[in-house]
This record gives sequence, structure tokens and C-alpha cells, in this order.
Amino acid sequence: MTSRRELANAIRALSMDAVEAAKSGHPGAPMGMADIAEVLWNDFLSHNPKNPKWFNRDRFVLSNGHGSMLLYSLLHLSGYDLPIEQIKRFRQLHSKTAGHPEYSETPGVETTTGPLGQGLANAVGMALAEKVLAARFNQPGFDVVDHHTYVLLGDGCLMEGISHEVCSLAGALKLGKLIAIYDDNDISIDGKVVGWFRDDTPARFEAYGWKVIRHVDGHNADAVHAAIAQAKTHDMPTLICCKTVIGFGAPKKAGTEGAHGAPLGAEEIAGARAALGWSHAPFVIPQEIYASWNAQLKGEAREQTWHAVFAKYTNAHPDLAAELQRRINGDLPHGWELSAQAYIVKLQHEGPVVASRKASQMALDAFGPLLPELIGGSADLAHSNLTLWKGSRDIKLGDENGNYVYYGVREFGMSAISNGIALHGALIPYDATFLVFSDYSRNALRMSALIPAGAIHVFTHDSIGLGEDGPTHQPVEHLASLRYIPNNHVWRPCDAVESAVAWKAAIERRDGPSCLIFSRQNLQHQLRDKTQLADIARGGYVLLDPLNAKVQIILMATGSEVELAMHAARELDAQGIGVRVVSMPSTDVFDAQPLEYREGVLPGWCRKRVAVEAGVTDFWRKYVGLDGAVIGIDSFGASAPAEALYKHFGITAEHVLAAAKALL
Amino acid sequence: MTSRRELANAIRALSMDAVEAAKSGHPGAPMGMADIAEVLWNDFLSHNPKNPKWFNRDRFVLSNGHGSMLLYSLLHLSGYDLPIEQIKRFRQLHSKTAGHPEYSETPGVETTTGPLGQGLANAVGMALAEKVLAARFNQPGFDVVDHHTYVLLGDGCLMEGISHEVCSLAGALKLGKLIAIYDDNDISIDGKVVGWFRDDTPARFEAYGWKVIRHVDGHNADAVHAAIAQAKTHDMPTLICCKTVIGFGAPKKAGTEGAHGAPLGAEEIAGARAALGWSHAPFVIPQEIYASWNAQLKGEAREQTWHAVFAKYTNAHPDLAAELQRRINGDLPHGWELSAQAYIVKLQHEGPVVASRKASQMALDAFGPLLPELIGGSADLAHSNLTLWKGSRDIKLGDENGNYVYYGVREFGMSAISNGIALHGALIPYDATFLVFSDYSRNALRMSALIPAGAIHVFTHDSIGLGEDGPTHQPVEHLASLRYIPNNHVWRPCDAVESAVAWKAAIERRDGPSCLIFSRQNLQHQLRDKTQLADIARGGYVLLDPLNAKVQIILMATGSEVELAMHAARELDAQGIGVRVVSMPSTDVFDAQPLEYREGVLPGWCRKRVAVEAGVTDFWRKYVGLDGAVIGIDSFGASAPAEALYKHFGITAEHVLAAAKALL
Repeated sequence: MTSRRELANAIRALSMDAVEAAKSGHPGAPMGMADIAEVLWNDFLSHNPKNPKWFNRDRFVLSNGHGSMLLYSLLHLSGYDLPIEQIKRFRQLHSKTAGHPEYSETPGVETTTGPLGQGLANAVGMALAEKVLAARFNQPGFDVVDHHTYVLLGDGCLMEGISHEVCSLAGALKLGKLIAIYDDNDISIDGKVVGWFRDDTPARFEAYGWKVIRHVDGHNADAVHAAIAQAKTHDMPTLICCKTVIGFGAPKKAGTEGAHGAPLGAEEIAGARAALGWSHAPFVIPQEIYASWNAQLKGEAREQTWHAVFAKYTNAHPDLAAELQRRINGDLPHGWELSAQAYIVKLQHEGPVVASRKASQMALDAFGPLLPELIGGSADLAHSNLTLWKGSRDIKLGDENGNYVYYGVREFGMSAISNGIALHGALIPYDATFLVFSDYSRNALRMSALIPAGAIHVFTHDSIGLGEDGPTHQPVEHLASLRYIPNNHVWRPCDAVESAVAWKAAIERRDGPSCLIFSRQNLQHQLRDKTQLADIARGGYVLLDPLNAKVQIILMATGSEVELAMHAARELDAQGIGVRVVSMPSTDVFDAQPLEYREGVLPGWCRKRVAVEAGVTDFWRKYVGLDGAVIGIDSFGASAPAEALYKHFGITAEHVLAAAKALL
Repeated sequence: MTSRRELANAIRALSMDAVEAAKSGHPGAPMGMADIAEVLWNDFLSHNPKNPKWFNRDRFVLSNGHGSMLLYSLLHLSGYDLPIEQIKRFRQLHSKTAGHPEYSETPGVETTTGPLGQGLANAVGMALAEKVLAARFNQPGFDVVDHHTYVLLGDGCLMEGISHEVCSLAGALKLGKLIAIYDDNDISIDGKVVGWFRDDTPARFEAYGWKVIRHVDGHNADAVHAAIAQAKTHDMPTLICCKTVIGFGAPKKAGTEGAHGAPLGAEEIAGARAALGWSHAPFVIPQEIYASWNAQLKGEAREQTWHAVFAKYTNAHPDLAAELQRRINGDLPHGWELSAQAYIVKLQHEGPVVASRKASQMALDAFGPLLPELIGGSADLAHSNLTLWKGSRDIKLGDENGNYVYYGVREFGMSAISNGIALHGALIPYDATFLVFSDYSRNALRMSALIPAGAIHVFTHDSIGLGEDGPTHQPVEHLASLRYIPNNHVWRPCDAVESAVAWKAAIERRDGPSCLIFSRQNLQHQLRDKTQLADIARGGYVLLDPLNAKVQIILMATGSEVELAMHAARELDAQGIGVRVVSMPSTDVFDAQPLEYREGVLPGWCRKRVAVEAGVTDFWRKYVGLDGAVIGIDSFGASAPAEALYKHFGITAEHVLAAAKALL
């Protein structure tokens, strides 16, 4: 009979050997957490290695993602499609074993981790999703949504501010199926944490309303088992504090930062092998250990049991079952395209003059009733972001069958939770704050794009147009900066119609994030024919062309500045100048169009180009080059009414006109 | 005799009236905190309205900066140079009373606040600076550095993750002269916080090692007085929890979110005047109330007392006094320029081939001994960022006479603390993390530039060149994004020499921040003549020009890519092509040079330009236009050894060469 320690040592050996082969990586965390992970995976985790996407599986998140070899070892040993050849190619180009776990690369990885604290936040999102879906779909006798979310985390995650934001919220919402296991090894990269991290972490988490299980020996399988079993018996989120030794088994480096982030070296590995009683060659795991670890049969059985329940549920509650199945599949509802398109056409006819944040709310009112999977929220700015719509129903402690989360003033936590919700599936999350505070959540926005997760991030008050709150609240560099995040789609619509199209595109983009950027102030409605209306979705299109004359100059703009460009264009047109106006609600989407389309909008022969956007000007050099002009703002804003600011900073139709005439 | 409540009501009246006149602003917080602030300012705060820069003043920070009218009222009433005309022009263009308090606009404002949680972090920085300077300079009988730092904060600050980071560190370092007062009014913008913020905040802060004073009635002056007095009696940071009513006095809106962020309206203001017994016209404050508030005489006396002590200190400890005075003045040490320049010249001769992070450490070793005001640190990456130098001395609990802070894994808190240290004065802070995690601290970096604060932010591991850790750790969009922050100076040096020049520039830039971006991998040394060496400081310069031929093509690059450009240039030169290479360590600094200089480096007649940088390509369109070429990376990176990645993503000398030839 293989001992539990031997099972755990398989993780330790693979981790040491893979890091050694890669000449790079983090052996200490996997070696320290191996016993915990062994108990969790072999005694508790409900999953199916043959179907990593089984909907009702427990979610497992390694928030201290640098310990990636722990996760790869677990996936490999328990029977996921991650053969030993991949372990041997740890951290090499095109392997499935990247330096940090990557959702898009490796089957069984639930989210991409490494940026500390965010895995924990993703886990909170997953646990929240589970609770909301359970409240919506479960029926007496049919707990079709019923799983735990486990997250391992270290001192680094707990020092990061985001851990405060999301654990405070998890406590407020009593996410009882969230079980966090703290790898309390007293060590971070700079050494013993006591010099800079002296929190009474258990007391801190109790202050959040968590259940805390203290003083668990993380190398004692029975103790770990008892703690996890206890964590499943109550309705509060649980923190299990496990004392561990980083690099457990390494004779000299165990218990020191020397085990953290570099290969142990041949001698230390030999010593560890001896100390652990692990005599097998590198990357060799005895068959009986593989057999003990293999979870394929158990996993298949678990999933089949669930399918059997789901079949009965389908008989008893056919509509609910069909709806849940649709959402699990990630399909948009029948009739979505037609309904959404009809709304957009109607808006084009009606031409409301509203702030685009209001247009965003109107879009939610139009699309929301079609989309019960929408789950929204704001970081304490619901009535400024206008993220509540007529069908919004609060998710509250004790009544989680809703679609709106009051995130509190927790921007970073919110967006990382959104990523977790999106990854969980069966829900489409949107969140919101002021554009300037995208800074607070910035790495979660990057992670949305990198994971990738289909989260929708709403940012209102998109420029100096927010007025009196002043430069701390006025974005200047943010539009450009968000557009530079790879795989991010950024929309800044110029009127209610473009706002609706942006929402539609964001909802349909399930394999990546969208940032929807809206104004505080009212925006004029723009006229469009059918082709123009259709081309909004291409990110950039010709909004105005000269009736008879040849195009001599192109004005391009986004959002609130489109009307300035149109105003200037009318003047130019009146002077007989052939002027084109290009509205560019999404530069990312436009850039992804075929060359032919882009050339049609911005023909290479026309170098007389003026861009106008209330943000940093240099971004627009990619479209106007060195010969064109850009009207924008390259300093911080100021505190004053919006109209005064636009005038003060020279973002006016007159300046656009002057710039155009200077080029002609 | 004017009652304390009447004194506080002066704040309430000014706040209501100013917000009403501006038709915008936040009356609720000033009205709720008026009694607290009255006690703090009249009974405790050691300051001198006639000299807001008196070095040993207590620092006062309003972390919930939206309550700016509280601070403006306090400054106005106590006798700062902020006349009633400015209060009447609240939130108007060119007034000294911006929507949120701005350090650069208003005398007596200690830091710019509004982005929640950061004022608290700045205050931690100020308190840390005080403790470090006291440990350095105070002598028996001479407490020449001896002041408190007071910070007011609200629920929003406490929900933000940064509050966790900085309060945890403040507890670990026992910043006993930090006194935080919590405006506990149960309300945030979305309503009663209990739905999303249920922390036991006192327990949370006790878990950080703070002393917490619970259940203080924030409208009872005696209770507030007793609490602050108690807070000054021990050596732990203190949180005073004051229960208050937001919008205190407003008959209908008090105690509700309706008082938070909009004018109360004429009727409600009339009702509040009646309820408060305040019968004076808008913006009228009776003389006896002004007289009670005025702190000019008391302040002058306080400062003079300190000067008297300092004079005796100067006699007893002339060297220490001279050194402290130099630092207070913000002067760099005598001989700095010559010594620094000599080191740079020496490096140019020696030509070490090292990673620029190593070159950064060498610069610290060279410059550090001259600069006892340097105070550094890293977010748990000391041995990766190489921020420890030979003269580094740990700042530890019980031994604060050092110059190095172990910040723990707290990037955002760290950089906001740096801002506070810089604002405190007599210290030059630098902090560090990986470049990709500038995302975590991003709004603090923005605030460095906006305040502005002379903080130095070091970011190492600046590209896919960091290798195996993979895309979560590889910056791609960050260089461009940091450069777009107004007033930010970003340096990405190409070798040890440029690294030293960047450090020198950052140290000398005391009126704004610098971001120093360094490589993980080794960089070749570049040859330079005297002029080239001098021109590094101009941000961009000609590193190579054809000996005889006319310039036909310009290659430009930064950091690790300069050697690729040089390699390609040698090939082109060998083929008889007139090629110039421009090294551009700081685009911001280069852009600020006179047109003549810029034209000399990048002459308008030469449009054949190739830029190469291991980051997003579009940024470089501002220099190469639509006709040039850019070699870079517009996707996320990957996990693999650095050389494999450079090849995989095509950032190679061969590609630069090919791009150049394609243009020719």
C-alpha cells in the first residue's frame, strides 16, 4: 500500500526535477504544499480528468501560481491530458507547462495565475457564480449546481491588497462553499516575513466573517483531512491555516527563501531524494503511485451521477434544464441577433440625445431581458455608472437569486471576480467604475485579455468631460493605455446607437474581454444609412463623405469628440472642401478588419488627416502619421465645469477646423 | 464664548454653500466630519498657517478627498492663504479650491487625494519618513524631528485593497505617530454599506497590530478629544473609530447617501441652517468665529519654539544640523554633480557588460554613499530588482535608522507610500518591482506625476527577456502606457552608462517622478564620444552615424534592443548604406528638448525610419510615422528561455535589417 507521504513525494520529485531540467522555476511551494494538495485532490476534489470542463466539478485554483509544478503534477498524476513529456518540457516554448499556470494552454487549469492575489479573487468569483446559479436553478431534490471552490494561497496573496477586497466581500456575501487553504510557511522572497508581515491573519479573516481553522500541520494528512472536512460543514467561507515548510524535504534549503524561486541543484535534490525516501530516477513515477493517484474512473462516475440527476431534473423542470444547458453551452438565447439588431435599428431611427452612460443603461434595458445570464455590478458607483437596469435584482445575503452585485469600493477585486465569474461559465459578468479608476483594476483587465475571459468592463466618465471632480478623476492616458493591452477590445461610442452596438459586440465576444467607455455628458445623435449602421461593428467607418467632391481631408474621432469633428466637417463642406469623417468607436476592432476594408475607410493616398479625442495625442499617430494633426490633451485635466475645460484645453470644433485648414 | 459646535458649523456652512454655488461637490463628508476636524485642528494639530512648509509640522491628510470642502474650510478658517473668494470659486477653473484637494494648487494641502485609500498610504509614508528621520537625527534633548501624522478616512478608503497593504505595514513597523480617524457613517455612494461591507474593522486593525479606539461619538467634542489624546500615549499606530452622521444637520438628507455627492439644494440648506442654528448668510463667518479658529499666532509660536531648539541643536551637533537643513532645503550634497559625472565617465571608459538591473545596483553603489537621503525598497523582490546596495541598512522594528524598507508584496501601497515619503521631505524614495506589476501600482504612479512627487520607481525584468516566468510576468504594453502618464519621466537605458545617467536624472528630478526600467538580461556596452555621453541626458541622441555617407535610414531603439539596432546598422554600413542609430532612453525627456535638437537627431527629411523595442509597436508611430517600420510585440509573450522568445517573436537584428532594407 502506497503511503500518503509517498503520493505527496511524487509531486515533490516531479517539481524538483522539472525545475532542475528547466533551469528555472519554483520548487519550494510545490514541495511545501504537496501533502495538502494530496489530501485535497485524493479525498475531496470532485472532478473528472477525462472531462476538465464538466460543469459541476469543484473548482481548484492555485493562487500562488509560481507553484505551478504543484498543479501540473496533480493534473499529470490524476490522469489529465498532460503526459510526462510535457512535465519534462516545463517552461519551454510551445509546451503545455508554462512557468505559471495558463488557462488557455493546459487542460484542467481553471484560471491563469501568477500575479499574486488574483487567483484568490477569481476563486471568489467562481464561488459567487456557483451560489448565484444554485439559487437560480436548484430545485428541491435537484442540486444541479453544487460544487466547492478550493483555492491555495501563500503569504504573497495575503499581503496583496486585492486579498482584502475580495475576502471582505466573500465574507459579506457568506460564500460558504469557498475554501481557502493558506500555505503558511513564514517565507517570502525577501526572507522571513516577520519583518514586514506580522498580521494576525486568522483574526483578520474572522473580522471578514470567515470561519478560520487555525494551526493545522500542513504535513499531517489526517490534520489536513479533518480541516477540509470541517470546512464543508458550515455556511461561511473558510480559511484553513496550514503551517508548512517551504521546500519540504530539501536538506539545506527547506524552510528558507533559497527554496523559493530557483532550481535546488543536483546535490540538494539528491539529498532531498534521500530524505524523502524517493529512489526513483527523474520523471519516473512507479505504476502503483500512478494507480493510487489516478482519478479517471472516480471522476467519470461522479460526472455520470450528476448527469443522471440532471436527466431527472430535465424531466421535472424542462424549462430550467434547457436554460441551464444553454448557458453551460455558452449559447446566446434564440432570437438574440434579431432582437438586438432590431433595437439598434430602432435607436438609429429615434435618435435619442443622451450621455453614452445613459445609452449604456438603455442598452441594458433592451438586451437585459433577453439575457438572464447577465450579472452586473459597480464599485460603489451604481447611479453614476448607470449599471442598474429595470431588470436588476440585488444579490443579497440570504437571497442570491439575483443579477446585480454591490461590489463596494473594490475596483481591482471586482474585475478579478468578474474574470472568475466568466471562467465559471453560465454567466456573463459586467462590472463598472470611472474610467480613471481602471488604473486600480488594471492588472485584472490585463488578465481578462490574457486568460482570456469574456468579462465586460464598463468605464464611465471618460474624459475631462466629467468636469468639476478634477484631474484625479479625469482620464487622459487611459483610452490609449487600455487599447495597448493585447486582445482587449475597447469601445468608445459616439452616440446611443454606437453604444448599443458596443454592448452587442461585448456580449457576443465570449472568448475575450471588452471595455466599454462611456461619457458623463450628453452626446448628439449621428445620422447613418444601413451600411454605416452595419459598419459600426467593424470598429471604424465613414460617418460622413462629401456629396460630390473628392475627399481632400479626413477627420477621425471617437466618443464625445465625433460631434466636434462633424461640426468642423460641416464648416469645411460649406467652404467647398471635400471632407470625410471617420467614427472610430473601437480601434482594436478596426485594426483587425481586412486591409481592403481599412483602406476603404482610411485610403493611403489621403495623408491629410486630423484626429480628435479627449486623451493623449500620440496614440493617434498610428492613423495620422507625421503629417497629420491630433487634437487632444497631453497634460492632466483641471477642476471646472466640462464646457470650460473643453475650451481651456482647446478640444473644440474650432481647433479641429483650424488644424484641418492648416493641413490643406 | 463661541461653542465648539458653532466652530464646527462654520465648516458645515462653508461646505454646503460652496457646493451649492458650484452646483457640484460633496457636502455630506465635511458636514459629518466637522466636529472631529474642529477638535483635531483646534486642540492638537501643530502647524503654522503662515508657513505651510514648516518642516516639523504635524501632517494632516484627508484621505477621503471628496470631502475637500472640509479641508478648504479648515485652511481658510485657521488662517492659511485661502481667502473666502477662493471658497466661493470652489471647483472653478484657476481657483485654488479644486474638486479634490491638490497639493500643487493650494497652500496647506499636504497631498493630492481623491483616489480612495491613497491618502492613507501617503500618510503611512509620511509617518514612516518621520520615524526614520527621527531615528537618524534626534539626539538626547533634541527631538528636532517630532511630529504626528493625522489622516481622516472613510468607508471607501477601508474597502480599498491599498488600505490593507499600508496598514499592515504600518503595524509591522509600529508607526506610533500615525493617527487615523475613521469617519464611520455607514454610508457609501450606493447606500448603506452593510450590504457589501460587513468587516469588523476594529478587529481587522488589531490584527495588524494597531491600537483601536472604538465607539467614539464623532459629534461629541469631548469624546473626540479624549480619543486623540489617548492615541498619543502609546507606540502603536492608532485607529479612532468615530460614529458620525453623513450630512449632519441636513434635515432630510442627513444619514443617507443623498448627502454624499450632490448639492443639498436651497430648501435642505435652509433647513440645515435652522437645525444647526446658523443664521449667517452664505460665505459669511462672524468675526468671533474667525478669531476662535485663527491659528496664526499659535502656529508662529510653535514654529519659533522649534527654531529655538534647532538653534541649540546646531550648536551641539553642527554636522547633523547642517545635514538635516540641507535635506530640508532639498539640496543635493556638495560635489554631487562632479562625483556623479565622474562615475558616468568612468563607466563609459570601463564598458561593463551587465544587465541594466545590475547597472542600476552599481549606480546605487556609486551614488548611494553621497546620498544619505536615499530610502529604498522593493515589493519582496530585493534580489531580483537588485535594490539593495552596499550601503543599504534595513529599517526594522526597533531600529529605524536605516535606508531600506522591506515593503512585502504590496506594490500599490509601496508606491503610494513613496509618494508620502517624497512629500514629507528630507528623503528621496525609490521603490521597485517587476515592470509588469507596475499595473498593480498604476494609479500611485499616476499620482506621483499629478501631485507631483519626486519618487523614483524602479521596474526590472522589462520585457519578454525575463524568459520562463511567462506572459503573466512579461510586460508588453507597459513601457508605452507609462510614457503616456503626463509629467512622468520614463527611462529605459541600453547599457550601464545610460543606466547611471537615468539614475542621475531621477535623483536630480525633485519636482516629479521617474520610472527607471531595467533588463533582467545582460546588455552590451556602447561606445560614445563626449558629446554623445552628454546627450544621453537629453533622452535621445545619435549613437552611430555614417562616417562618410549621408544618412539614408535611421534606426531607433531603447534598452536591450539598442544592440539589435547596432548590429543591423553594422550590416547596413558594410553594405555601403548610410545608417544612423538613435538611442532613445527617455522619449518623454527627448520630446521636451528644443525642436532644433530633436530635428538634429530625427531630421524631418529622413522618413526612412525603423524603430525596435520589445513592446507594443504602435507607440513608435509618433517617430516613424506611417512610412516607417516598427519591430516589436503586439501580443502577450510566452514561457520559454529569453533567447527563444526573442527569436519566436521576431525581435532580432535580422528583422531590423530586413525592415530597413525593405524601406530602402
